[in-house]
Amino acid sequence: MLKEVKVPVSGNLFKNNASYCVGTGRMGLALQKEYIDHLKIAQQSIHFKYIRGHGLFCDDVGIYRECEMDGQIYPFYNFTYLDRIMDTYLENGIKPFLELGFMPEKLKTGDNTVFYWKGNVTPPVSFEKWAELITATLTHLIDRYGREEVVTWPIEVWNEPNIVFWAGTMEEYFKLYDYSAEAVKKIDPRIKIGGPAICGVETEKWLRAFFEHCIENDSPLDFITRHCYTADQQTDRGHYIYHTLNDPTYMIEELKETRRIMKDYSRIANMPLHITEFNSSYVPICPVHDMDFHAAYIARILSEAGEYADSYSYWTFSDVFEELDVPKSVFHGGFGLIALNSIKKPTFYAFEFFSKAGKELLYRDEHLVITKNDDRYVIIGWNYKDVKGDKEYSDEVYELLLPAIGEQAIAVKKEVGGQHANPMKTWSNLGKPRSLNKEQLDILKNSAEPLQTDDRLIEQEGIYKMELKIPCNHLCMVEILPVTDNTDTYLGYNKEEFYGM
Amino acid sequence: MLKEVKVPVSGNLFKNNASYCVGTGRMGLALQKEYIDHLKIAQQSIHFKYIRGHGLFCDDVGIYRECEMDGQIYPFYNFTYLDRIMDTYLENGIKPFLELGFMPEKLKTGDNTVFYWKGNVTPPVSFEKWAELITATLTHLIDRYGREEVVTWPIEVWNEPNIVFWAGTMEEYFKLYDYSAEAVKKIDPRIKIGGPAICGVETEKWLRAFFEHCIENDSPLDFITRHCYTADQQTDRGHYIYHTLNDPTYMIEELKETRRIMKDYSRIANMPLHITEFNSSYVPICPVHDMDFHAAYIARILSEAGEYADSYSYWTFSDVFEELDVPKSVFHGGFGLIALNSIKKPTFYAFEFFSKAGKELLYRDEHLVITKNDDRYVIIGWNYKDVKGDKEYSDEVYELLLPAIGEQAIAVKKEVGGQHANPMKTWSNLGKPRSLNKEQLDILKNSAEPLQTDDRLIEQEGIYKMELKIPCNHLCMVEILPVTDNTDTYLGYNKEEFYGM
Amino acid sequence: MLKEVKVPVSGNLFKNNASYCVGTGRMGLALQKEYIDHLKIAQQSIHFKYIRGHGLFCDDVGIYRECEMDGQIYPFYNFTYLDRIMDTYLENGIKPFLELGFMPEKLKTGDNTVFYWKGNVTPPVSFEKWAELITATLTHLIDRYGREEVVTWPIEVWNEPNIVFWAGTMEEYFKLYDYSAEAVKKIDPRIKIGGPAICGVETEKWLRAFFEHCIENDSPLDFITRHCYTADQQTDRGHYIYHTLNDPTYMIEELKETRRIMKDYSRIANMPLHITEFNSSYVPICPVHDMDFHAAYIARILSEAGEYADSYSYWTFSDVFEELDVPKSVFHGGFGLIALNSIKKPTFYAFEFFSKAGKELLYRDEHLVITKNDDRYVIIGWNYKDVKGDKEYSDEVYELLLPAIGEQAIAVKKEVGGQHANPMKTWSNLGKPRSLNKEQLDILKNSAEPLQTDDRLIEQEGIYKMELKIPCNHLCMVEILPVTDNTDTYLGYNKEEFYGM
Amino acid sequence: MLKEVKVPVSGNLFKNNASYCVGTGRMGLALQKEYIDHLKIAQQSIHFKYIRGHGLFCDDVGIYRECEMDGQIYPFYNFTYLDRIMDTYLENGIKPFLELGFMPEKLKTGDNTVFYWKGNVTPPVSFEKWAELITATLTHLIDRYGREEVVTWPIEVWNEPNIVFWAGTMEEYFKLYDYSAEAVKKIDPRIKIGGPAICGVETEKWLRAFFEHCIENDSPLDFITRHCYTADQQTDRGHYIYHTLNDPTYMIEELKETRRIMKDYSRIANMPLHITEFNSSYVPICPVHDMDFHAAYIARILSEAGEYADSYSYWTFSDVFEELDVPKSVFHGGFGLIALNSIKKPTFYAFEFFSKAGKELLYRDEHLVITKNDDRYVIIGWNYKDVKGDKEYSDEVYELLLPAIGEQAIAVKKEVGGQHANPMKTWSNLGKPRSLNKEQLDILKNSAEPLQTDDRLIEQEGIYKMELKIPCNHLCMVEILPVTDNTDTYLGYNKEEFYGM
Repeated sequence: MLKEVKVPVSGNLFKNNASYCVGTGRMGLALQKEYIDHLKIAQQSIHFKYIRGHGLFCDDVGIYRECEMDGQIYPFYNFTYLDRIMDTYLENGIKPFLELGFMPEKLKTGDNTVFYWKGNVTPPVSFEKWAELITATLTHLIDRYGREEVVTWPIEVWNEPNIVFWAGTMEEYFKLYDYSAEAVKKIDPRIKIGGPAICGVETEKWLRAFFEHCIENDSPLDFITRHCYTADQQTDRGHYIYHTLNDPTYMIEELKETRRIMKDYSRIANMPLHITEFNSSYVPICPVHDMDFHAAYIARILSEAGEYADSYSYWTFSDVFEELDVPKSVFHGGFGLIALNSIKKPTFYAFEFFSKAGKELLYRDEHLVITKNDDRYVIIGWNYKDVKGDKEYSDEVYELLLPAIGEQAIAVKKEVGGQHANPMKTWSNLGKPRSLNKEQLDILKNSAEPLQTDDRLIEQEGIYKMELKIPCNHLCMVEILPVTDNTDTYLGYNKEEFYGM
Repeated sequence: MLKEVKVPVSGNLFKNNASYCVGTGRMGLALQKEYIDHLKIAQQSIHFKYIRGHGLFCDDVGIYRECEMDGQIYPFYNFTYLDRIMDTYLENGIKPFLELGFMPEKLKTGDNTVFYWKGNVTPPVSFEKWAELITATLTHLIDRYGREEVVTWPIEVWNEPNIVFWAGTMEEYFKLYDYSAEAVKKIDPRIKIGGPAICGVETEKWLRAFFEHCIENDSPLDFITRHCYTADQQTDRGHYIYHTLNDPTYMIEELKETRRIMKDYSRIANMPLHITEFNSSYVPICPVHDMDFHAAYIARILSEAGEYADSYSYWTFSDVFEELDVPKSVFHGGFGLIALNSIKKPTFYAFEFFSKAGKELLYRDEHLVITKNDDRYVIIGWNYKDVKGDKEYSDEVYELLLPAIGEQAIAVKKEVGGQHANPMKTWSNLGKPRSLNKEQLDILKNSAEPLQTDDRLIEQEGIYKMELKIPCNHLCMVEILPVTDNTDTYLGYNKEEFYGM
Repeated sequence: MLKEVKVPVSGNLFKNNASYCVGTGRMGLALQKEYIDHLKIAQQSIHFKYIRGHGLFCDDVGIYRECEMDGQIYPFYNFTYLDRIMDTYLENGIKPFLELGFMPEKLKTGDNTVFYWKGNVTPPVSFEKWAELITATLTHLIDRYGREEVVTWPIEVWNEPNIVFWAGTMEEYFKLYDYSAEAVKKIDPRIKIGGPAICGVETEKWLRAFFEHCIENDSPLDFITRHCYTADQQTDRGHYIYHTLNDPTYMIEELKETRRIMKDYSRIANMPLHITEFNSSYVPICPVHDMDFHAAYIARILSEAGEYADSYSYWTFSDVFEELDVPKSVFHGGFGLIALNSIKKPTFYAFEFFSKAGKELLYRDEHLVITKNDDRYVIIGWNYKDVKGDKEYSDEVYELLLPAIGEQAIAVKKEVGGQHANPMKTWSNLGKPRSLNKEQLDILKNSAEPLQTDDRLIEQEGIYKMELKIPCNHLCMVEILPVTDNTDTYLGYNKEEFYGM
Repeated sequence: MLKEVKVPVSGNLFKNNASYCVGTGRMGLALQKEYIDHLKIAQQSIHFKYIRGHGLFCDDVGIYRECEMDGQIYPFYNFTYLDRIMDTYLENGIKPFLELGFMPEKLKTGDNTVFYWKGNVTPPVSFEKWAELITATLTHLIDRYGREEVVTWPIEVWNEPNIVFWAGTMEEYFKLYDYSAEAVKKIDPRIKIGGPAICGVETEKWLRAFFEHCIENDSPLDFITRHCYTADQQTDRGHYIYHTLNDPTYMIEELKETRRIMKDYSRIANMPLHITEFNSSYVPICPVHDMDFHAAYIARILSEAGEYADSYSYWTFSDVFEELDVPKSVFHGGFGLIALNSIKKPTFYAFEFFSKAGKELLYRDEHLVITKNDDRYVIIGWNYKDVKGDKEYSDEVYELLLPAIGEQAIAVKKEVGGQHANPMKTWSNLGKPRSLNKEQLDILKNSAEPLQTDDRLIEQEGIYKMELKIPCNHLCMVEILPVTDNTDTYLGYNKEEFYGM
């Protein structure tokens, strides 16, 4: 059924934080060439502002060390790898959103670890030494990158202390938070600090306790962080974990709920809220991350999340990632926007398209946003339907009436879904090779590109009329640019001779 | 109407010389950055073996010079630019098919010139000095590139002496040929030499006279060359010249006719025949060169020309070309496979596809060749229709029954035409900008890519069944590669969870 | 003899315009790959702000055209090449200093040409058409590059109208100037315009006449331009022209003299003076341009010329240059800072070193400038001696006493001359090959690098003491940077074990 | 004292295996960008044929895995990282010299580990599973890279089983060897296998026992491997370990001794001997690795080792290395030929120079080899002196009389030592920064280049006479190439005008 939309001439600011921050696996992976290749690709198209990942203080980055000489122990802070990682980030136009964690071997109080790469999650032997580690690290970063740069890097204390990522109690987390926050603010009070970085377990309890702790103790606090995954039921099978998914609006409701809790505390109510991790499934071996419908699914979230959160950091930009082990194949259900071998997944384009959205929001519904910058329209459409099993299938079809921005315009459409920008499908047709040869890689890279087509729009009575069809589980973007027609400067131009155009 | 084709298991050698040689404007253009960019693009995809262009001895390449000192004249051969040009060719994996011409200023006998860049076409003041120029040039090339390399470079004497490109008589051309051939063979008898390089005016007269001259005088002669353009009527309008076109088979008939004439001379009969220039229109300001149907048109020629000719050198690989003046716009009707700003035109893909054809020809009709290499099928389809005016329009539709080359295969199709690989259409929608800004360039480069889609073929009773539709004035290639299905190595793989694939 | 210099703590602004502008051959050469390679090299090290060359309106750039249709003549302005050239400049961080000239074929009034590339130097058939050509060109440039950018491009009218470069009279030049200036100012009054672009023949007569013309007619005039070459006697021999040279101070005297003439006219007195061409010899086949002493010679000029002139544009940055013909060999006496095959000549470093000079001038004599930026010293030394024939030879040796900028510093010295950064010498040892093979190129590129050495300076009583020896006809730069010594953070460091350091 | 050397016209084959193989840290490091940067640099200059490192089967490469589903355990071989590593090697023109080890977590029998990166060194739980791991790995490599390629990759069983790298007994090592060798030969009998990979502890005992084991059991054995480090006394201080060094001939004696032992066993006597690791100090925190004299020291070894060993693999090519922890600074005493930030150390040039040596050895003494290829001389000189403490210092000075290879030649000399190619000295002058900023990096990269100078040699009575001075602890190479003097083709060339050359 055709839906007619009369687009207004102007609108309000589009609260769109899609490219504010993105997630990454342990920071040590930033030493790898393939990781850097992927980062370049992401930054070239999406231009994320910040990147957040785990493992700043883990032993593979190798900062905290102790050395004995003449019977005395000397602490030593080794920044060789940290500098290389930060250089890589900054060279690619992205800044760190620092997560303080996990625990260096020499400061641990137990052997609890998380992940294949064994991040230690126990409280420190000495909170003072923990604070000194933060002090030494920030001091070094300021020496190397300059104070004015480093004060723009937000800092979050630890990761998901409400589950297995923290072997201490809630109170011990608050103590860690206070020590960390004090150390940070001593370096420079302009550096923003926040927490409690929890995932969706006992959320309300943790948020309220954290807020109350900070208020009562007057702890420094500049922003609130939490995580959000929209997966529902889980099934484990061999090398996969399968998930059913909640509707994408599930995430929007979570954000609203968090804002409602924040509202109860006047000091907290208007603070920035950063969703420092989000995705559908929370495991890196769930195939939904690789599939075309997922682009439409995430697009629905991106279309509205900015109303409630100041950032929502997709976990993660790249399949160069090792939490559950080394990836076993090109496509394996990893979190990344980019698959191994630098192949863009469908969801990559959800972020690319929203990164290009205009500043003004003219229209929004469940499948469409129409935005405008000074000189152009950017329209993003999506059509997520849960079609697993026998569920019904339908396209969304619009007739758009857009106020003209010139006598003539070009509408350039990019489509994702089905045969286009859907490399896992092509990879499946290739027999699911685990590593690729050069020919397979070429085929896949081509198959990962959206379908671009274009049309001419001619103003009639101040309006461009355009039909837009969004097939089931597709995503698309239409950019409409005003065009100056130079045809009459072509001496002798005869339209009849340019047949078939 | 569906046409069923039962493809045989084996066939004969596919006589396919599509990538043997390609044409280029004056050689001096090879100093330009944009020219070199285009050459890289062509070689990366098509891997032409030889390149032939005009102007080796013209004054912009600057080889022949004379200098006075103490009242004496010293000839000087300056190879600065020639070396740079040849380096560029060889670095890009292409060898020169040398055309001896035109006349250096210091050796000319008149002021007749051709082209915007004023190539002098008069006979030499001294045939001995002409021969010395050849000798000096080849000697230098052997010094720099090695004898074994240089003897693989064929040499053609002059260009189109039967029209305005030669201000002398036919007899003078034969004299020029004899002096040239003798000089060449003295350098190394293994170097191949040929002529008469004529275009399609008084062809038979010139061929017979040339053959008879060589036979009677026992002139060295290793191969025969001529040109072939298939345009019919011409209309001049402002910055354009329009042409109606003969059917592409017109060229095939011309080749047959030339072979028939050659057959009359036993020394000549089995010599290689090189079509050192061909195209539809013979002017670089005719829009047919830029249009999508032209890819289908040229594909028809490429499908059969190898039966009669040892090469057919498309005139030219690049729109970096100046015969009628500096190009006035991105698209201007130039000869090139590649438009200014490195944009591939539809016809580029006719050559790319044929460069990938298999060695064995299994099937051929007016719209299709089916070829095979050891491990794969390469199918090329085209559907040229003259639709100017009110002429009818129809698709070609095939059902192909192909002997299976494995239980499972992937068919990767690339399509050219309409919305795909048709950048002039997009450029027209952009308002026909003469120079491009970065955004326009990005849009056009994307629009110049063929549409790639893929399908899985499953063997049934030894056969893959595949439907192939070729829309009017489209060109396509299907590559069918055998595939090993690794699905059962994916522990826990559940097809239901990979829905929509 | 050792000269002791006690360097003061502070000084005045160093008037140093060494990297303000550089010259180039005809603009059409900017299409060539090798030209662009050289431009990248120059910009990477020297960062010239402007580039000035001939031939904007010549037929190889191809702007002015006329086309007939239906019996009517249509003028057409073709900006295909101009856009490519300007894109190249701007992509490499350099802006055009536009020279209006020479005359398009279709506007010429005679056949007088200059150079191998035949620039027509006759007055226009119609001064109105000439003005329209300027108007069309600037309008187009503003369309493409933006008004705010284009108004920063200075414009000079014609080139050396006082000699063979102008086939008209002085009065006709003034007329051309007035038409040009009026056209320019109509486009945007902010665009700076100047002349008379004369060389050193009848300088005073031309300057005074031009100034008086502008004052009397109230012609727009923003800056004064002239050229300056310091060569003395000329000897022509075969492929070379040899020159004896005046002392480098000859140029400084010329600048002073021009300023003296300007002073006589109050409207003119304080105008910017741009030396839009300078060099030693004025021919591109004089070996002095390639030799090591020339770096020292030019350095002397650069050390002081900024006191009198707002720019002095070295003619030219590259040996990709064709005024007297295609270069005949890698080294041939060309004007360029960079020889064919991207080999830096000694004089390249004179410009690189001065482009790095500090803003503050602490000391200057005939062989040395000592400059400072906030955090460092930049010292440039040169020792030009005319040693042709039997003239004596001597080094310059200094003991410098520099106010310390920290407890410890590193002095990094780069030397040019003799065995270092003197590729023509190595090329001569290689037998003077005209074109290079890969090994020869590698040897030459290495030989073209300055010798870098470094030393530690330790503050003593607030002073660094440093000896500086400048061998005859060498050039050198010493950069002194303050250093933080981290040695004591190296646990277990034992100086004895780092022997030989 | 001047030593005169009359070089003979011809000589014997120079047994020079300097570029046959090089060492690398754990293979997982080959995923890192900086590692790959270094590999490119090494291959561009030295072109090593093979690379050998540890950790093929360690858990960071992640090959051996087990997965449970429905109560059953499935082994799984994950080649994602192995493929990426091997791709990297082959793309850079280097092949693996495979070392089988260490033990995957799932196959270990204890917790003994080596290195910061914790390679497990215990025998396998099942020798059959170990053999299956080898089988699976080689089968996969053949699938991916082709059988004909993989059979050229030698295989060594384990690393240094005679010390802490093997937690089992000697007999258990022999069992591991036999299982491994059998598995390898089953895949393809052409694959070469060897051992026992011991270091210099109880060498003779291990060698004889291993030889006898193989002979008695008829175990497959294609080559013998051992390691050799020439360090003497060790002093541990904080972040450093210092070593005194034996004379470089110590290594030559070790090789001779090994050959003597081999001679006792007829099956073994003429087998290839591969020194799969060698260096001076055996720790990656000893400053000698970074110092200029070390280049001369290693050069002495390279000059003769090929007489006794078929390869001697320098441990290691790069400071991207983690055995004792993440490197703490740019220079830290690491093994690498290339320091962090892609800075070439002096010893890099020992390998580069020997990789360019001619096939014919004309002369050799303690400080010099003179070699020849068809068209050129390559002379390598070194002058290692132990100058620690107060030891004396002297240069080596030669007068060489070389049979002329043409009337004229160029001698191109590259020198390493002192102020040249000695970046640790410059880094020390820079204050020993742990990480570099861009300016420091530029200074260091320049300081790491050898000093290149050149001279003209003129044949006199069939001889070139050349003096060669080798300062104490310097290394140099002189290449002498015949030159064709083209001077007389330069019309008008006047030597007087090219003064100072």
